[in-house]
Amino acid sequence: MKTVPRPQPGPALPAEVPLTAEELQLASRNHAMPLEMLGRDRTPAGMHYLVVHFDVPAIDAGSWRLRIGGAVRRPLELTLAELQAREQRTLAVTLECAGNGRSLIHPRPISQPWIHGGIGTAEWTGTPLAPLLAEAGVDPEAMDIVFTGADHGLQGGVEHDYARSLPVAEAMSPDVLLAYAMNGAPLPPQHGFPVRLVVPGWYGMASVKWLTGIEAVTEPFEGFQQIGSYRYKRSEADRGEPVTRMKVRALMVPPGFPDFLTRHRVVEAGPVLLHGRAWSGRAPVQQVQVAVDGAWADAELDAADGEFAWRGWSFHWQATPGEHELMCRAMDALGQVQPLEPEWNYLGMGNNAVQKVAVTVRTPR
Amino acid sequence: MKTVPRPQPGPALPAEVPLTAEELQLASRNHAMPLEMLGRDRTPAGMHYLVVHFDVPAIDAGSWRLRIGGAVRRPLELTLAELQAREQRTLAVTLECAGNGRSLIHPRPISQPWIHGGIGTAEWTGTPLAPLLAEAGVDPEAMDIVFTGADHGLQGGVEHDYARSLPVAEAMSPDVLLAYAMNGAPLPPQHGFPVRLVVPGWYGMASVKWLTGIEAVTEPFEGFQQIGSYRYKRSEADRGEPVTRMKVRALMVPPGFPDFLTRHRVVEAGPVLLHGRAWSGRAPVQQVQVAVDGAWADAELDAADGEFAWRGWSFHWQATPGEHELMCRAMDALGQVQPLEPEWNYLGMGNNAVQKVAVTVRTPR
Repeated sequence: MKTVPRPQPGPALPAEVPLTAEELQLASRNHAMPLEMLGRDRTPAGMHYLVVHFDVPAIDAGSWRLRIGGAVRRPLELTLAELQAREQRTLAVTLECAGNGRSLIHPRPISQPWIHGGIGTAEWTGTPLAPLLAEAGVDPEAMDIVFTGADHGLQGGVEHDYARSLPVAEAMSPDVLLAYAMNGAPLPPQHGFPVRLVVPGWYGMASVKWLTGIEAVTEPFEGFQQIGSYRYKRSEADRGEPVTRMKVRALMVPPGFPDFLTRHRVVEAGPVLLHGRAWSGRAPVQQVQVAVDGAWADAELDAADGEFAWRGWSFHWQATPGEHELMCRAMDALGQVQPLEPEWNYLGMGNNAVQKVAVTVRTPR
Repeated sequence: MKTVPRPQPGPALPAEVPLTAEELQLASRNHAMPLEMLGRDRTPAGMHYLVVHFDVPAIDAGSWRLRIGGAVRRPLELTLAELQAREQRTLAVTLECAGNGRSLIHPRPISQPWIHGGIGTAEWTGTPLAPLLAEAGVDPEAMDIVFTGADHGLQGGVEHDYARSLPVAEAMSPDVLLAYAMNGAPLPPQHGFPVRLVVPGWYGMASVKWLTGIEAVTEPFEGFQQIGSYRYKRSEADRGEPVTRMKVRALMVPPGFPDFLTRHRVVEAGPVLLHGRAWSGRAPVQQVQVAVDGAWADAELDAADGEFAWRGWSFHWQATPGEHELMCRAMDALGQVQPLEPEWNYLGMGNNAVQKVAVTVRTPR
């Protein structure tokens, strides 16, 4: 037997090193939404951001079962058909990866190197979770509901099926869905076929894909994805605070057309309608502002699109020849605004710093 | 007006530098197929590889028209409904980006940094191009048929709509389709909605998306994507040879389960069915071999899946505890085989070097 040295894991701690091969591998698997898709109310399946921690599992829908157990009076086991026969609800939901913007912080953690594209808005159809939990009869002493997916692997040295929990009160929200369709079609394999959780308002890690089990537990859940990841923390030793709901954020469709390699934008001088989307998982978006070369002014907000989808905005810009920097930022009803520069944390979570777009405006030809 | 310095384009020439921010931007837009998808005959839309040189255009199917003109006797203009009313044909076609494997060559060109995932196999439904060209009456002196898409931008300093040509004889092949459906659904926006070209056997750059025009020309087409890119060349000055059909290649589903960060694989000792797909745009796949720690042996081939789709293969491996390196390679009916190491060229085209997968085999727990 030829022995092949096992590759050492790359540096996973925050570093000022150039992009690593590990980051490229992750970026090539975990798809971003190209920002021109901000121009559409709904994100088509292949354009919605995607994180697959391990491999996309191949699941046979016929033999698939969802088990609801743990600290409940009546454990349940449901087929896909049984779930689909229950009350059906469709919600337009903006989902964002908690690590969106990670590649833009310094020093940056070596993980999925998002720029701005860890985002998407789809219509998710499924059955509400709360009535199922009520049927199962969750023990009054239960603290968390644990959701386990079929994807299996190693992370941080811990072998596990991807699993996340919600506090019981959050899991009982009428808006939490067991979703089996995305934009009117069965879930694509990579988005959790046959059934995934959708937790509106929360960063995407809560919306567990390829669900296999739901378990009520009477102690706080301490799985790897709950404690070892998705925390706002200052150092390796710091336990930190859990990542929960999406921070307020606006993004714009980069105007004009791009250069292939640099993605730098070229715009014709004259009136340009800047537009994009804004969202917050904590409160409705109340204001969006645009800055041209540092001078902020209010953008116009479209009508709200339900409670959980991003909100469109637009801004009339009279573009003059030369080099310009465009920015946008949102404020929500809690008064939360986006910072101009990233707020550093050890795992690169929740970076909602304003987007900056450099544009060359040229005289029309 | 605040003047913002315009970012300089990164180095686009072959370089030994670490991964650049430009490459990450491209990788985050141009999606790879995760290799576990080699386990499926057909690639779902959101998992199929994707290259968008500029922005995904937003096209209204109702007002869209396809113009066929240039050196033809009867220029045509067709609506989507008119195309869909014509003869319909569905073909399963494997498409691969000509730059697949680019990030693995040294020095590497700074462009879309594919690892192995620039690949996919879908069922494309459309109408054959040849009868339309016959109706238009292509001038006997025409040399090339030029296909122009709606995506617009700058590349290599040249502003253009993406356009590629085929020699007239290739364009008249009965297998070249004007496709309006992928895997039984209308084309997703990112795959060329409403209509794209599909040229079976050729690398993906020939299958122009978001088609707007088809033009017969009596001189060789010398657009940027024909002459400035997609060439096998040795230096900047070398005009090189055009990239045409896909070279022979096999890829395997990485066995076992991965580590999140490194993607290193862990397998339980015992019998393991290695499997994957093989294809060539030049001749049928005739043989696939697998090497465990450098010793090559024949894999079993599945039945062929039409003329243009990849071919499944499998190999029974008795995995013993320790570190192993797996490889696979294909040979086609022309006797073409894959090299063990990449064959360097200036633009990083057609790298079909064998895939190597490092695996840790552990004693079952």
